[in-house]
Amino acid sequence: MAEETPPEATLAETEPSDLQVTSLYGLTPKVEAAILEAVEGGNKRRARMLVSPLHPADQADLLERVSADQCAVLVSLLGPALDPEAITHLDEEIMERVLDQLGTDAIARALPALDSDDVVHIAEELEPADLDEVLQAMPAQERVLVEQALAWPEDSAGRMMQREMVVVPPFWTVGQTIDFLRSGDSKANEFYMLIVTDPSGHPVGEVRLSSLLRSPRPRRISEIMETDIRSVPVAMDQEEVALLFRRYGMVSTSVVDQEGRLVGVITMDDVVDVIDEEAEEDLMALAGVADGSIRISVPEMLRGRASWLLVNLITAVLASLVIGLFEATIEKIVALAVLMPIVASMGGNAGTQTVTVAVRALAMREFSAKTVWSFAGKELTVGLLNGLFFAVLAGGLSWVWFRDLEVATILAVAMLVNLIVAALSGLLVPLGLQRVGVDPAVASSVLLTTITDVVGFFVFLGLAAVFLL
Amino acid sequence: MAEETPPEATLAETEPSDLQVTSLYGLTPKVEAAILEAVEGGNKRRARMLVSPLHPADQADLLERVSADQCAVLVSLLGPALDPEAITHLDEEIMERVLDQLGTDAIARALPALDSDDVVHIAEELEPADLDEVLQAMPAQERVLVEQALAWPEDSAGRMMQREMVVVPPFWTVGQTIDFLRSGDSKANEFYMLIVTDPSGHPVGEVRLSSLLRSPRPRRISEIMETDIRSVPVAMDQEEVALLFRRYGMVSTSVVDQEGRLVGVITMDDVVDVIDEEAEEDLMALAGVADGSIRISVPEMLRGRASWLLVNLITAVLASLVIGLFEATIEKIVALAVLMPIVASMGGNAGTQTVTVAVRALAMREFSAKTVWSFAGKELTVGLLNGLFFAVLAGGLSWVWFRDLEVATILAVAMLVNLIVAALSGLLVPLGLQRVGVDPAVASSVLLTTITDVVGFFVFLGLAAVFLL
Repeated sequence: MAEETPPEATLAETEPSDLQVTSLYGLTPKVEAAILEAVEGGNKRRARMLVSPLHPADQADLLERVSADQCAVLVSLLGPALDPEAITHLDEEIMERVLDQLGTDAIARALPALDSDDVVHIAEELEPADLDEVLQAMPAQERVLVEQALAWPEDSAGRMMQREMVVVPPFWTVGQTIDFLRSGDSKANEFYMLIVTDPSGHPVGEVRLSSLLRSPRPRRISEIMETDIRSVPVAMDQEEVALLFRRYGMVSTSVVDQEGRLVGVITMDDVVDVIDEEAEEDLMALAGVADGSIRISVPEMLRGRASWLLVNLITAVLASLVIGLFEATIEKIVALAVLMPIVASMGGNAGTQTVTVAVRALAMREFSAKTVWSFAGKELTVGLLNGLFFAVLAGGLSWVWFRDLEVATILAVAMLVNLIVAALSGLLVPLGLQRVGVDPAVASSVLLTTITDVVGFFVFLGLAAVFLL
Repeated sequence: MAEETPPEATLAETEPSDLQVTSLYGLTPKVEAAILEAVEGGNKRRARMLVSPLHPADQADLLERVSADQCAVLVSLLGPALDPEAITHLDEEIMERVLDQLGTDAIARALPALDSDDVVHIAEELEPADLDEVLQAMPAQERVLVEQALAWPEDSAGRMMQREMVVVPPFWTVGQTIDFLRSGDSKANEFYMLIVTDPSGHPVGEVRLSSLLRSPRPRRISEIMETDIRSVPVAMDQEEVALLFRRYGMVSTSVVDQEGRLVGVITMDDVVDVIDEEAEEDLMALAGVADGSIRISVPEMLRGRASWLLVNLITAVLASLVIGLFEATIEKIVALAVLMPIVASMGGNAGTQTVTVAVRALAMREFSAKTVWSFAGKELTVGLLNGLFFAVLAGGLSWVWFRDLEVATILAVAMLVNLIVAALSGLLVPLGLQRVGVDPAVASSVLLTTITDVVGFFVFLGLAAVFLL
């Protein structure tokens, strides 16, 4: 733990002014440069002295910031000076690399120092064969916990929870409870609440540590516990767990199995990771990116990006086919070719606005029967008003440019129609996808721009073909 | 507090099966329907009995889910049965409406029951005149705290922090500390750590409640406190605070003024709101939405959306001007008009992928001197490889369609160039904006699509003009 190795001891080797900055972030550019210098110079002792006082999160950040080669040198130089907890802070790609380098023996030795949720997090990243080796090398009791956790589906509460917790019966007194905690018999390192269970292991209440500390020794746990508790089923999806935590401002919650018996706890810090992960997933999905990390390899990146671009190519060709229907019209009035991207682009952008708001609202469970109708009404009104405004604007521009009133009128009408279609489909596409069980974040954008492109080109060129030829 | 009004008392009036579901979410469809029935029927007593056991977050959700009229009736029916904390959970727009209806007297009476950060959150939403009235009606001590907090910039740590906290000197013993907490002299309702300060009020350490509970009574606070603490300056931006919490898995932190003296604490639940807010802001900004709430009014919505569409119109006209340069070329080879949107659309999508990853990485501070170069290298490689792949694919398609080898070749070259430009500008645009102090999330998308549209049309039509005429 941090207090055992005061950072001053080491920082004295660098500039004293660093002390100011390092009070917030441990890994300042100066510290980083000093470490890299020691690594390049092969100064093992100095590298260790600089790295070991860093917070595990800073150690992880260091490994992520340097090149793959430097990372390998650092890991081998540091050896046991690398805090096992730092591994849990690593990005997936770097974690795999570091685990590979450490080897199964070192991993198995490091794991028992960690909370069970962190152990599971690392175990998830190991190859099946390596995982078996690591599990064999672990103490039997720890091994069972990890194996149990890995039996739960990925991204479930069972994978997020830790097994270390403080459980007390309701009939204990505050004094008894504090004495129990002082005796050191509880396995949890850090905890934010006590869980109160009945004799068969069902949670019946929770005690905040602040309540415990404020209550006199003779008072019974049953008198100070909160009974309005929310225990999460072990199979619940992590996104669902995060929504519960956010909604009720929870800091910690108990996890129960199918029979309602206590099996673990989930704390806020794990939930924050999930919130970040889910927000990033939605953001990337809307932009058509399979993996938003800046650290994945070129082949992974290529695969994730190209598949989406392929879908987009099909969409674009579809739009071109629509244009192709009107080749004869364009041949006669080239101004149409000049103006047509405006209609499609405005529709695509207006629709993306609606889609993004709708996808976020779906993710945050903000739609009720009432709010969805009121939102739809407002979107349509905005689509209509924006449509009228931009119809006049674009029509006017086109008239100034080409001095052709008919083309300007047709552009205006097409713009109005496309912005209304954009509002409508910007709402219906994500709602429809959600209804049929497809993640609206993933497929909404591409479906929407297909609609607005096709409608935009078709209405504009179609009207021109009918009225101008 | 929840434990004083056991939910069973009220839920007995609804179906017993509700008890299962309500163990996780208080506001089930059945409970909601029962409340609305009571409201419609004007059954004040029943409405209160159903609403008051709900968690404040559920009360807030109820007010958000119903129509504006029903919300007004609910608020007037409930009166004091509405938990003041529920107001803090409301969405901005609904909060303004409810505060308006409550009036300044009722607000002033409700506020002292809340933590100071929640009071500030409500005060921020009041009109200046109303705020003055509310402040006048509040106890002097509370008023000063609110006025001080409002003096800090919006979105700063000073606005997020609460003033209620537990502060102890380092020379106290564990026993003394627990006796102090039991005496009820501390003002904090709920707290996750003790803050240890020196005689002049500078934080020198923090004590986790779990450490306090595990230590014997005679041990000194100075022996069990962690000294490797991160105190946040009161003017720090909330986004910065959220990054610190995430990075170090913090649950609570002290806030200090310019002289480094303790002025408040920020807890994880406030930070989660900020994380959500910032993630939503980036998501919406990338899509060109000023306010992502589904509850803002039509005029607000219109203003937020139209300004972005106007920018997009200028962009689209710019692209059209480029096309206009080549009217003569298009007139001779109409196939160009049919194919040109494909080049622009593919460039826009590929660039959006890169922009989104870069914007997220910037927001999460993931770029270092090393990682930004390695990311740039990978993006360019992917742009080149995707460019080659889609050049062949699109060129082939065009040949099958128009049987014109020259047009197909030009399409292929334009596609390759545009996808490389997309990768390059997808990275340079957000980095450049960040460098000049503009939020990359807000302006990157529009700048990028301008570039890919202009380059796409210019290269494709320009090559055609040079080689085909």
